[in-house]
Amino acid sequence: MPNFADVLLDACHQKGTPLCVGLDPRWDSLPVAFRSGSADSLLVRATAYQSFCRRVLELVAPCVAVVKPQSAFFEACGPDGMVALLDVMRYANKLGLVTILDVKRNDIASTAEAYAEAAFNVYGAHAITINPYLGRDSIEPFLKAARPQGKGIFVLVRTSNPGAGEFQDLLSDGLPVYRRVGMAVEAWNGDNLGRHGYGDVGAVVGATNPQELRDLRQAMPKTLFLIPGYGAQGGTAADVAGAFKNSTGGIVNSARGILYPFKPDDKNWEHAIVAATERTKRDLGEALGRS
Amino acid sequence: MPNFADVLLDACHQKGTPLCVGLDPRWDSLPVAFRSGSADSLLVRATAYQSFCRRVLELVAPCVAVVKPQSAFFEACGPDGMVALLDVMRYANKLGLVTILDVKRNDIASTAEAYAEAAFNVYGAHAITINPYLGRDSIEPFLKAARPQGKGIFVLVRTSNPGAGEFQDLLSDGLPVYRRVGMAVEAWNGDNLGRHGYGDVGAVVGATNPQELRDLRQAMPKTLFLIPGYGAQGGTAADVAGAFKNSTGGIVNSARGILYPFKPDDKNWEHAIVAATERTKRDLGEALGRS
Repeated sequence: MPNFADVLLDACHQKGTPLCVGLDPRWDSLPVAFRSGSADSLLVRATAYQSFCRRVLELVAPCVAVVKPQSAFFEACGPDGMVALLDVMRYANKLGLVTILDVKRNDIASTAEAYAEAAFNVYGAHAITINPYLGRDSIEPFLKAARPQGKGIFVLVRTSNPGAGEFQDLLSDGLPVYRRVGMAVEAWNGDNLGRHGYGDVGAVVGATNPQELRDLRQAMPKTLFLIPGYGAQGGTAADVAGAFKNSTGGIVNSARGILYPFKPDDKNWEHAIVAATERTKRDLGEALGRS
Repeated sequence: MPNFADVLLDACHQKGTPLCVGLDPRWDSLPVAFRSGSADSLLVRATAYQSFCRRVLELVAPCVAVVKPQSAFFEACGPDGMVALLDVMRYANKLGLVTILDVKRNDIASTAEAYAEAAFNVYGAHAITINPYLGRDSIEPFLKAARPQGKGIFVLVRTSNPGAGEFQDLLSDGLPVYRRVGMAVEAWNGDNLGRHGYGDVGAVVGATNPQELRDLRQAMPKTLFLIPGYGAQGGTAADVAGAFKNSTGGIVNSARGILYPFKPDDKNWEHAIVAATERTKRDLGEALGRS
């Protein structure tokens, strides 16, 4: 069974970009063609999200290797939303994309096993996001489910929201909590590394502070980085470059910047999505070439 | 609009117990009557979970005020599981029970809003569990959705699993991280208190260390406690007493100890569930009477 880090990085190298497209379907931002019906109907919303995300997958599949559906938007449509999510996940897999299901799950023992079962075996994710607050035994059940399948996890280490520092920046023995979490993630990778030198326990690290990213890259040489907050959330290509080592070792997620570079009544929305994807790839490529 | 703390505590006082029944449906533990079909079918599992939980709700509704469905077990059944969860939540509400949906969600901005929409408005929860790692702005969207409806949240402060201390016990300025989170939770309650003196931002605090519970109760006088880990997970009635103030201010969750006090082929399983509920109520009542 391959190491998930190899699966991810090989796929990125093949497409020539570490760009990951975030699938965050939002009713008010969808092209009007998808909004035929009442937004009050969860089924109408779920169906619109499904159709839009399927089309986005077809548009971006030639350009990128990785997509990251955000579970919350599907969950907000109730059970119908989960039918839509399941279809979107299957379609992404069918198109040969690596799927990171953004769920930020966390629990222990058989409850964590149930979350892992849902994400990896029911929805077919290649990797999921995990919140570390509960400690090592809340991570292990997810890894135990992922590793034998060549799948992986991304543990929240440093988030990019304004209040991220409230607990993540608390200093303990001179190091902020997020650095302690990062050290644990690096240790969980142990010797279980793929050909590229990375393990299957990745880290989510926010993109808003370039120096922090450089420091984390140095402190966590074996850990894949998933970098959110790119584009609409404020991070630039130059900001994220420090998270990479020899232009590899991570992926950069952009959602809004790629999904919605148009007004809802713009008939050329498909072209706009492809253009935004290509532009982001180019920007990232130039920044990483200089890193 | 009432404060959620009053909704919860009034309901508990009416039933004469702070006991909360955790709904953790597990295929292998269900009475055999519910396991007619292949466990490989997600629909079969989901239907069994739904039927079993409905019957449990009918059995415990006369005895307790609060139930806590664990989302993970339903999620592991795919979209069919969410249909089952929706039905179980609606039935609990119909029976007049307060519902705490255990989801441990966490995210920011519109993503957190989507999770809140799902939990409070689609599934109809009175309260949900939240993971605090992302900081204040990951809590606010949930509270903003809950408070105007007289609903609430329970923030993970101290969990009871063996690895809980890995990050929660890191010392910062002489206080462990979980105490810092507890201080933030207490502050989020601010002056928004109900008649009983508690706010709608509760805390999940594990039951395995009695002194820790007493210290947290003293440090967080305005915060409702949700205490998991009772019974099957090792906490005893005497252990949890310190989390209460004048016999009130919290709820104690028991799942396995109440759901599965029988062998799957025991024909008297319904009686066993009611007996376990009454026994747990009595044990808690005696311990709190002495607190």
